[in-house]
Amino acid sequence: MGSQFGHIFRLHTFGESHGRAIGGIIEGCPPGIELDLEGIQQTLNRRRPGQSNLTSPRKESDRVEWLSGIIDNQTLGTPIGFQIRNKDADSSAYREFKDRYRPSHADFTTEAKYGIRDWRGGGRASARETAARVVGGAIALQVLQTVAPVEILAWVNSVGNIQAKVDKKTVTATSILKSKIQCPDPEASQLMIARINAVKKERDTVGGVISAICRGIPPGWGDPVFDKLEANLAKAMLSIPAAKGFEIGSGFSGTLMKGSEHNDTFIPGNPHPTTTTNHSGGIQGGISNGMPIYFNVAFKPVSTIFQPQQTVNKDNQVQSINPRGRHDPCVLPRATVIVESMAAICLCDHMLRQRAIKGII
Amino acid sequence: MGSQFGHIFRLHTFGESHGRAIGGIIEGCPPGIELDLEGIQQTLNRRRPGQSNLTSPRKESDRVEWLSGIIDNQTLGTPIGFQIRNKDADSSAYREFKDRYRPSHADFTTEAKYGIRDWRGGGRASARETAARVVGGAIALQVLQTVAPVEILAWVNSVGNIQAKVDKKTVTATSILKSKIQCPDPEASQLMIARINAVKKERDTVGGVISAICRGIPPGWGDPVFDKLEANLAKAMLSIPAAKGFEIGSGFSGTLMKGSEHNDTFIPGNPHPTTTTNHSGGIQGGISNGMPIYFNVAFKPVSTIFQPQQTVNKDNQVQSINPRGRHDPCVLPRATVIVESMAAICLCDHMLRQRAIKGII
Amino acid sequence: MGSQFGHIFRLHTFGESHGRAIGGIIEGCPPGIELDLEGIQQTLNRRRPGQSNLTSPRKESDRVEWLSGIIDNQTLGTPIGFQIRNKDADSSAYREFKDRYRPSHADFTTEAKYGIRDWRGGGRASARETAARVVGGAIALQVLQTVAPVEILAWVNSVGNIQAKVDKKTVTATSILKSKIQCPDPEASQLMIARINAVKKERDTVGGVISAICRGIPPGWGDPVFDKLEANLAKAMLSIPAAKGFEIGSGFSGTLMKGSEHNDTFIPGNPHPTTTTNHSGGIQGGISNGMPIYFNVAFKPVSTIFQPQQTVNKDNQVQSINPRGRHDPCVLPRATVIVESMAAICLCDHMLRQRAIKGII
Amino acid sequence: MGSQFGHIFRLHTFGESHGRAIGGIIEGCPPGIELDLEGIQQTLNRRRPGQSNLTSPRKESDRVEWLSGIIDNQTLGTPIGFQIRNKDADSSAYREFKDRYRPSHADFTTEAKYGIRDWRGGGRASARETAARVVGGAIALQVLQTVAPVEILAWVNSVGNIQAKVDKKTVTATSILKSKIQCPDPEASQLMIARINAVKKERDTVGGVISAICRGIPPGWGDPVFDKLEANLAKAMLSIPAAKGFEIGSGFSGTLMKGSEHNDTFIPGNPHPTTTTNHSGGIQGGISNGMPIYFNVAFKPVSTIFQPQQTVNKDNQVQSINPRGRHDPCVLPRATVIVESMAAICLCDHMLRQRAIKGII
Repeated sequence: MGSQFGHIFRLHTFGESHGRAIGGIIEGCPPGIELDLEGIQQTLNRRRPGQSNLTSPRKESDRVEWLSGIIDNQTLGTPIGFQIRNKDADSSAYREFKDRYRPSHADFTTEAKYGIRDWRGGGRASARETAARVVGGAIALQVLQTVAPVEILAWVNSVGNIQAKVDKKTVTATSILKSKIQCPDPEASQLMIARINAVKKERDTVGGVISAICRGIPPGWGDPVFDKLEANLAKAMLSIPAAKGFEIGSGFSGTLMKGSEHNDTFIPGNPHPTTTTNHSGGIQGGISNGMPIYFNVAFKPVSTIFQPQQTVNKDNQVQSINPRGRHDPCVLPRATVIVESMAAICLCDHMLRQRAIKGII
Repeated sequence: MGSQFGHIFRLHTFGESHGRAIGGIIEGCPPGIELDLEGIQQTLNRRRPGQSNLTSPRKESDRVEWLSGIIDNQTLGTPIGFQIRNKDADSSAYREFKDRYRPSHADFTTEAKYGIRDWRGGGRASARETAARVVGGAIALQVLQTVAPVEILAWVNSVGNIQAKVDKKTVTATSILKSKIQCPDPEASQLMIARINAVKKERDTVGGVISAICRGIPPGWGDPVFDKLEANLAKAMLSIPAAKGFEIGSGFSGTLMKGSEHNDTFIPGNPHPTTTTNHSGGIQGGISNGMPIYFNVAFKPVSTIFQPQQTVNKDNQVQSINPRGRHDPCVLPRATVIVESMAAICLCDHMLRQRAIKGII
Repeated sequence: MGSQFGHIFRLHTFGESHGRAIGGIIEGCPPGIELDLEGIQQTLNRRRPGQSNLTSPRKESDRVEWLSGIIDNQTLGTPIGFQIRNKDADSSAYREFKDRYRPSHADFTTEAKYGIRDWRGGGRASARETAARVVGGAIALQVLQTVAPVEILAWVNSVGNIQAKVDKKTVTATSILKSKIQCPDPEASQLMIARINAVKKERDTVGGVISAICRGIPPGWGDPVFDKLEANLAKAMLSIPAAKGFEIGSGFSGTLMKGSEHNDTFIPGNPHPTTTTNHSGGIQGGISNGMPIYFNVAFKPVSTIFQPQQTVNKDNQVQSINPRGRHDPCVLPRATVIVESMAAICLCDHMLRQRAIKGII
Repeated sequence: MGSQFGHIFRLHTFGESHGRAIGGIIEGCPPGIELDLEGIQQTLNRRRPGQSNLTSPRKESDRVEWLSGIIDNQTLGTPIGFQIRNKDADSSAYREFKDRYRPSHADFTTEAKYGIRDWRGGGRASARETAARVVGGAIALQVLQTVAPVEILAWVNSVGNIQAKVDKKTVTATSILKSKIQCPDPEASQLMIARINAVKKERDTVGGVISAICRGIPPGWGDPVFDKLEANLAKAMLSIPAAKGFEIGSGFSGTLMKGSEHNDTFIPGNPHPTTTTNHSGGIQGGISNGMPIYFNVAFKPVSTIFQPQQTVNKDNQVQSINPRGRHDPCVLPRATVIVESMAAICLCDHMLRQRAIKGII
């Protein structure tokens, strides 16, 4: 329990960071969809480690191997099995954590839950698992785009206290991708890079906020009352390692507004009504209203810092550790594509749910 | 799809605001648990309307009728069916919205999704549905308390820009309950009441933040990778009407910290290690670590304001509305118990999931 | 866990035989469907006790009360909550079984599982629970009939060794309903009635086989590999109290045939190919092929016999019992409508699953 | 949807017969269980093709590759990913079926459902998929055996009209495995082999019945009302390719008995009551009662016969086919291990469900 997401379109992942492979099964993918497999690989490359001095130097080609569910690039409607081999796993740096709990990692809790733990590379708790989500998300997006002109963009909106200035209405994929750290504000991007380099030099890490916008979502997706679209988006985002917060539309700042300021006035639109403002963030009552869906996700600073730290071991005794290994000083640049992927899976699932009941009369 | 929450302990709700009844089925409740049914009713009374001039004057006794699953106050292990009759439904104030969409409500989106809508009292989208959640949550809490000394507290932490000063470590149920608006900081409570009265006079509404803490949760609850405890809490909270944001532990402010500041140092504890700080918010890698779990939930200002507003009708034409009816100027005082309830359901479900696999060897 | 059936169209039931009420929630019902509520009540009346001297004399009006999900006879797409009050519960005859286990009933196993048991009227294990299934099935059928000319018929095909002669191709609802025991072969019907009266006089009970046919199912319903249509039908049927066997198409007798005899030859049809024979029973590879779906369900003789019997009590000691109370000497006449109902729910769920992915390209 | 089985212990399979690989994910496997991986491989070898002249000559080593969830032979509690490569796929014999529907196969229905079909080797509808079930079942059995002395045996009980004489009480794994066709009655085994050889010579096929017994199941497993243990077993069995019927305990023959004959008398036992007879088949009210669980599964004759046959093509036109390829003349000898596997998965899932709620008080 726990490694699946979605009700009709469902991603099921497996894999430990230093095991044989990671991968998954995509269930409920509609048949007959022409997939751009090379495009999926390119999407996956966005989260690949070793791409710059700002990310972990682990060298993984992260090549997806498709095992089932596709013939001649077309989906069969059957489960799509896939794997990504772990090739550059180096467990030596983790040996010292076999019996000691790294602070703010999942070492202690994994052992508390399971009584056993794969200490090599963080095991199942490693963010390496998210590669399988990117594969699932890339397929979800292609499915979505067969039914609507969906565009999902996520970017680094802040690193520490450096805040980008981004116009949600006009931001483009190009402007995000041309930044080494996925920040479409060139000035902020430079400052963020400098900041990440600085904390890296201090053997420290830094957090930040990823913002996202989903365009082209028609009205009617989302399932009240517990499976509200924003509720499943929140779950999707908080399931990403290091995520600590989620806000949709006006979010926390909306709590400072009055109803008369916050309400989004409906005006006639084509083919359906639109709103003059969008404090709702594209969702009302758990269902999309046709306006862009936007949200923020908070990420804490990476827990692995290359500094001596105190902790305890399995026997509840004080210990010192001094982590080595290959880690990102800031998780955000590689996490934008994960945010996009989880949003795509969530939206694709709700799109299919809607198809099941739509227009029966 | 959509009206169920939980995998083993599962709440399934039904009901429209002005229909015959609301209610639900609680599935997966362990057998042999002595329920305090009067205590459940009292918990439910906390969200009842008509309790003060700060809330909707709708008069509902909101008496739970137990239909199954309980004998001599003991759970049978079978589904617990229950209902709460709608007695004071007055649909007259809603007639003008039958063909017009109230701004920032679910009227338009419900119709976009279903092609049909119960316009009376907001139908299924009404927050009245949450009464069933409180019943489910109250039972979940009693189940939790048979296995651990669990305490779940939620309070109003801000209303608009009025911020309470609350020490999470020491806050008590008593201090929350003695405030008419569930704010344990007496000074802030007074200011908040004044603010709510002021916006009410302006025929306007106001939002705010509810904070919560869950104590006594043992290490080991939560299911990586998609069913991380914080992910399901996020879903639970964002499924509450008017919720716009969620943050766990350090949350959005944690993005401003460095790893060296944010990491929670483990120290020996009894019976298990604890941490010196708790920026993690009691969850690491999606699993509880034995520290208190705390989080914030942002609520937007109530959408129904008693002011003339422009909108559109079903035919996509400009219309004016001037809402009447019975509504809260601020949703937060009645929502604290809903936050507690959803947290209890979520925790109870993960507790049972953990039991299924724990100690098999 | 256990009281729900279906993935998209889902029935969730609650209720003990002598509790306040039985009922359920129908989730995933498409919106905008005009329900014939009186027709549903009439369908439910077919399983009502007290209709003749061949069934239990318990007097229950079994009137469905609709609690939600319907407005002006139209489905809203929201959960349909409903209840049926238990009015003529008489627990006195069960008091002697409070600590003693009735042979071949669920008394011992319920206690083994839950450690507690509602001894009144068999509690949750009573076939009274199936009334909620009939409500769910009647709605499912009306949903099905909005998309295809579906007809589902179940009849009593044998009682003990009395075998009806029924032509599956031509059997009609009328011919079934005009028999007091739902057997469309008038001669066999007379013999069966005589047999049931005879065993009743002996204070004994008798079993038999219910056969069913589902017409008008288009090709394409069913989800390989575990959710094959026949697999879910088998589950649906074996979940009916007293059911002991299920066979689809040629069933057990098909094991005596050679492949050359069993294969159903395809011939051109309109609008799709048909087969000359139908040993497959309308399903191939878990998916409907457009031919009639037919199957048999075996029912054991009712366990409650009005004869002295030996058993044990809670303390594992030998005891005697001599059951009284109100019971059917043969469950089959009232079970045909349950078989039809479960088939309808199963088919409706698979129809909606198919809609989710159909024609996306 | 459709490729998963189980609620807590869940098997999710993927793979087409002639695709890159088949495999799956086992979710919900408890942690810390020492697996006998070589034993699992040996179990899998029982269903491997090419073992004798009675089975398909396709040569597959069917070697399981473990991808995740296991460290040092111990389960981690995380998803167990595995794959089995397809090595000896020869699609040439299937080319003639690319546009023509093989009688009583899933060709037509797959195309009706998905609009696309992997014609190579039967694609997803091939029984090759069941290899992944055997892997899941072998792990399930090892999990079961950590909590109870569970033994699950399935054997060929009839081939056509040749009926084995097998004493369910005493039948052993050894007696089954020493028969080339898994029939523990040596005399019947010889006759069956002769029969299979005879039909093979006729280029025909034959069906039969597999019987199974599950020993050592404690009382209390199974989840009323829809997830009755026999209901999920029925689903499990009918999901096996070529299965046409299922009966538990007295099954269809029980319909000929009176209640006074069928009832199983309880007598004191140690540690819990037992019954003098076992017409119930070890399950009462959907919950195991501690007696052996036994059931029969009917299998139709294999649809691929090496004889000219008439059929239609995609254009609804009459066509002739004359199948070649590699097929079993009788599916039963290789299906006993599949029956055992599905029973193990089903029982393991219900065992874990029971653990979740058991002894909470």
